[in-house]
This record gives sequence, structure tokens and C-alpha cells, in this order.
Amino acid sequence: MRVALLVHETFPERAKTAVGLLRYGDDEVVAVLDRTLAGDRVRDHVPDVQNAPIVSGIDDVEEPIDALVIGIAPIGGGFDETWRDDVRGALERGADVIAGLHAFLADDEEFVRLADEHDCELRDLRRPPDDLTVSDGTASEVDADVVLTVGTDCSSGKMTTTFELAAAARERGVDAGVVPTGQTGIAIENYGIAVDRVISDFTAGAVERMVEDRAAEYDVLFVEGQGAIGHPAYSGVTTSILHGAMPDRLVLCHVADRDAVHGYEHVPIPPVGEYADLYESMADPVASADVVAGALNTQRLDDDAAGAAVERFAEAIDAPATDPVRFDASEILSAALGEE
Amino acid sequence: MRVALLVHETFPERAKTAVGLLRYGDDEVVAVLDRTLAGDRVRDHVPDVQNAPIVSGIDDVEEPIDALVIGIAPIGGGFDETWRDDVRGALERGADVIAGLHAFLADDEEFVRLADEHDCELRDLRRPPDDLTVSDGTASEVDADVVLTVGTDCSSGKMTTTFELAAAARERGVDAGVVPTGQTGIAIENYGIAVDRVISDFTAGAVERMVEDRAAEYDVLFVEGQGAIGHPAYSGVTTSILHGAMPDRLVLCHVADRDAVHGYEHVPIPPVGEYADLYESMADPVASADVVAGALNTQRLDDDAAGAAVERFAEAIDAPATDPVRFDASEILSAALGEE
Repeated sequence: MRVALLVHETFPERAKTAVGLLRYGDDEVVAVLDRTLAGDRVRDHVPDVQNAPIVSGIDDVEEPIDALVIGIAPIGGGFDETWRDDVRGALERGADVIAGLHAFLADDEEFVRLADEHDCELRDLRRPPDDLTVSDGTASEVDADVVLTVGTDCSSGKMTTTFELAAAARERGVDAGVVPTGQTGIAIENYGIAVDRVISDFTAGAVERMVEDRAAEYDVLFVEGQGAIGHPAYSGVTTSILHGAMPDRLVLCHVADRDAVHGYEHVPIPPVGEYADLYESMADPVASADVVAGALNTQRLDDDAAGAAVERFAEAIDAPATDPVRFDASEILSAALGEE
Repeated sequence: MRVALLVHETFPERAKTAVGLLRYGDDEVVAVLDRTLAGDRVRDHVPDVQNAPIVSGIDDVEEPIDALVIGIAPIGGGFDETWRDDVRGALERGADVIAGLHAFLADDEEFVRLADEHDCELRDLRRPPDDLTVSDGTASEVDADVVLTVGTDCSSGKMTTTFELAAAARERGVDAGVVPTGQTGIAIENYGIAVDRVISDFTAGAVERMVEDRAAEYDVLFVEGQGAIGHPAYSGVTTSILHGAMPDRLVLCHVADRDAVHGYEHVPIPPVGEYADLYESMADPVASADVVAGALNTQRLDDDAAGAAVERFAEAIDAPATDPVRFDASEILSAALGEE
């Protein structure tokens, strides 16, 4: 697919979905729409991903596209009316529009009419399937080996670690797939359920369904975790994924030097070793799984400090660790695959 | 309020909401609709609750009523078309109709039209408010003392224990309120949010909102827990309540001799002492709380066996315990209130 990414005024720091697609997606990105950076190119801002011109709007995208992807996840998840011209323009060109907003494109009358007139699709990645139900507690029976990324907080690198591990496994010839649980992962894989949007009774069931689906296609699954088991707001989502996926092994993701829950600074993050134990204790009643590796986000440290931080982290969780972006996910792949 | 309860073919075993209302509700129940038991009286089947005639349908309810309550929670939560005549009849008499089904009465065109014509209301107890959002992690700041019932399984007595403890506290002169989180509790209290129907991102937030609401009205809150932290399908709901409510103390509910998760017989329930520890470990990162008392459902045991089972349970969890229905919730009230 040839796609354009809409990221107005947010690229790259607050355009997580767009950066994920540029880094891990199979689609060809022909343009990035950011009215504040028009004239630049993607690699001026993010060096290690596919390159593309940045333009100010859909009318400046000269090549044909199959889809326009809203590459931002704004707080609150609403549709920003300043994006309307671009969405309209894309639909008028016959391109699909893909979004992971809480507000659904398909609830917008104008977009529905235009999509209908131009024979294209509105795809809301966060809309859960209608036929979800409670889990059967059967995901442990799949033939595939299942590895779940878990974290000590939100935005601690679970999505990135999931995709880096899958890529490293494929490089080693392993038939590895991803089970995405959030909008960026879903956009990259063109598959998945945004589990935080599922009613709480059915959340584990949604994860179980995806694991059973994908286990039929791959030998090894890397399941993208969400939130953290000790997060005051999102721990329910995390727990549902842990028990719905019934993983064989866990990889713990942490941000170096983060010692309080982001946005909840009054809630300290427990020591990482204790945190790993808590995940294992919580997995136990449903399907035992050990924390076999760690992924540390060292983005804010220099190279020396990063290396030392990774060593301390590995020691604390008593398992091999790395920063899968700064260093290489292959360093923890064997552990994640249960080979160590 | 004067109410009739619809429980066709399910009274009393599978009519949990109706039995809850008969036992704990403030409303006067003037009739119970069960076509298979017409002619009997409530106390022929449940001895220790308010009495009422059982009739075969709404047309046999002679006294005026303010509302008809669907007193069943069928598997799947659908509306059974054999109830339609009764609902229609109630609306035509100007009575409200109250239900806790997954399927909403207010989505039924005929019911909406009749309610409109007869100036009465359709109340769907499981419909979450539209304006829910993520939790702020602030429930621990309320002035009220907060006690949460938690369990080793679904249907282990959390709702019953919650209401029995609140009643015992009031008898002792304590200004106690209930925070209901399921349809029966909501029907009894005429207040509350069915948390299992809330999208998973907002579940802790829904609980936090209720705790903060009700803490403004009462000195002590008994929060009704749901599911179990080691339940393969519902653990996410349980965790969201634990972290959203930030309770001061926990009361652990268990069914005597139940050693596997109901409906998930391949998932054993861990020893109750370990289970209590797991709840405390999971509470810890967000807001510490100890299991200070136990409530054991001994319904299936004779009196001698029940006494012995309660003793063993108390020893295993290292806290006072009772069966709040067979014996008396006041036996664990002091512990629940943190006085011991």
C-alpha cells in the first residue's frame, strides 16, 4: 500500500502512530502532512526510518495514494476540525482513511457520504468487533510460543520492544508474528483489537481471540502489552492481557530513571525486581510465566550511562537486558524464546 | 417505591437480582412474576426475606406499582421475548421498567413509544454514563473509610458480604454506605455503575468516581468487588476496582470447598492464604491494603462442618472470618472497620 500520514503540528514527538508506521510498517509512505514542517523530509527529524517528503496538506501530495492515515493519538482521542480538508481531499481522490481515534470517522456524516461517493473506506482502528465475548481461558493451549511484553508504566517501550523482537526473530529465521493491542500496532499490522476500548468484561476474551487467531499462522507470537500492572488507571487492561494471552514468557519494559508513574507522580514505581516478581505472581493463578528478559528505554542517557543502566536493570530483574532501540533486540532474543 | 419483580422460570436460584432486592432493598415488593410458581408465596422458596405473592404475569398484579424490575441476569444478557407482554403491560399501567440486561430496554422501539405515551421511564442499570474517563488515582484522598470485598472467584459472596457488612455497621450506629458495581447492587441502591460494562480504559475511573461521590455522603463505604484477581476472564475488572477504589482494607470472600474457578474447572483456585497475599501485593503499588477479614460461603455444608470450615479459613488467611449469611456479619465488622 502507498500511504500518506497526517501528523499536523505533532511530528515526530507526539506522532507515535506515524513514527511506528515509518519504522515498522510494510506500507510505502509517500508523504507526511505537517503544516509546520512543510518542505522538510522525514529523516531531517527521525534518522533511522524510511524517508518521505513533508508537505502542508493533501493537495500537495502528488503521487497517488491508497490511504491517508491519521498518525496522531491526541489526548482525549477527538477529531481535530483542522484535519477535515485533508480527510475530505483524500476521500475525493478515492483513498481510504484510517484512524485510531476514540471518535470514529464512520460516525461523521460528511465522511460517510464522501467514502460512499468515491468508493473508498473509513477504517476506525479502535472500533472493537461487535461479537466479542468473555474469555474461555484457553490461550495456553495454542501451539505457538507466546511472549508478552509488560511494563512498569505506560509509554515504557512495550510496542517498540514487541516489534524489535519480532524483527530480530525473523532475521534469525523464526516464523514470528505480532499480536497488536493498541492503535499503532494495529496500523502497522493492519490487524488487531484496541483492547483499551473493549468493555472490561470482554478484554481478556479479545486478547485470547487474537492469540488463538495468530497462533494458527505463526510459530512464535510477540504480544504487545499495555499499561502496567501497578498503574492506577490502566492496570485492569494490563491484567486482562496477561490472563487473556496466557504467555509462556514475559519481557519487562522500563524507562531508565523513571521512578513515578507518568502523569501520576504521587504513585511511585516499585523497584524493578519487585515489579518483575509481581508480574510472575499475578500470572501464576492463570498460567505461569517468568520474566525472562528486560528492555530498558535509555533514550535520555548518554551511551556510557545507558550501558551501565542496562547492566543494573539486568541485575535487578535477574535476566538479560538491553535497550532494543539503542543497542539490539537480538541480545535478549534467545532469552525471550526460552533458549537460555 | 412499590415494585413487581419479573423472574419467570428462574426463581429463586437464578434470580439473583430479585433475591437481592427482596433481602436488601428498601422497596416494597408487591408481587413476583414467575409463571411456573404462580400461587406460591416468596417465603415458600426463600424463608428469610420480605414476603409477596407469586403470580403468572403483570395482569395478575392487583395493586398499583411504581416499577417492574427484571430480576434475572440471563447468560448473555439478552431480552427474552416471552417477557414482552409483561413489560408492555407495566408501561401501559404507567409503571417504570428497570433492567440490568446487556441488551438495553431503551433500544427497543415499542418500549420507547409506550414509555413516552404513558409518561414513564425505561431504566437500564448496565448503561454506563457517557462522560466516564480515566482515573486520577485520587480515591485514597477521600475522608471516608473504604472497605472493599474481594473474592477467590465470581459468585463467592462479595455482593452479599458488602450489604451484610453495611447493615451490621448501621446497626452499630456507623454512617455506612455501599458502592455497588454490579446490576443487583445498583438495583438495590438505585445508584451505581456496572463496571464490567465500562470500556477497560475507564473502569478504574468509574470506580474512583463512585467512591468520591459516596464518600461525600458517608463515613464508611463498603465497595462491592467483582470477579477475582486470578480469574481468567474477569481479573481485569477486579484489578480496576482494587486500584480505582484505593481501599483502606480488604475482606476476602470464598466459597467453602470450591477449588477451581467456576466455569473454568481447568483453572485451580490457589490456597486462600496465598490468594490473600496476592491481593495485598497487587494493592501495594497503588494504595496498600491488607486482607483484614474473611467471609466464607458455607451454603453447601451442614452447621458443624460450616463452623469448622470458617475456623480453617480464618486460620489460613490469618484474620477473623465468618459466614455472614449463616452466622452474622457483625463477627467481622470490627476487623473490617480497622478496630482490631
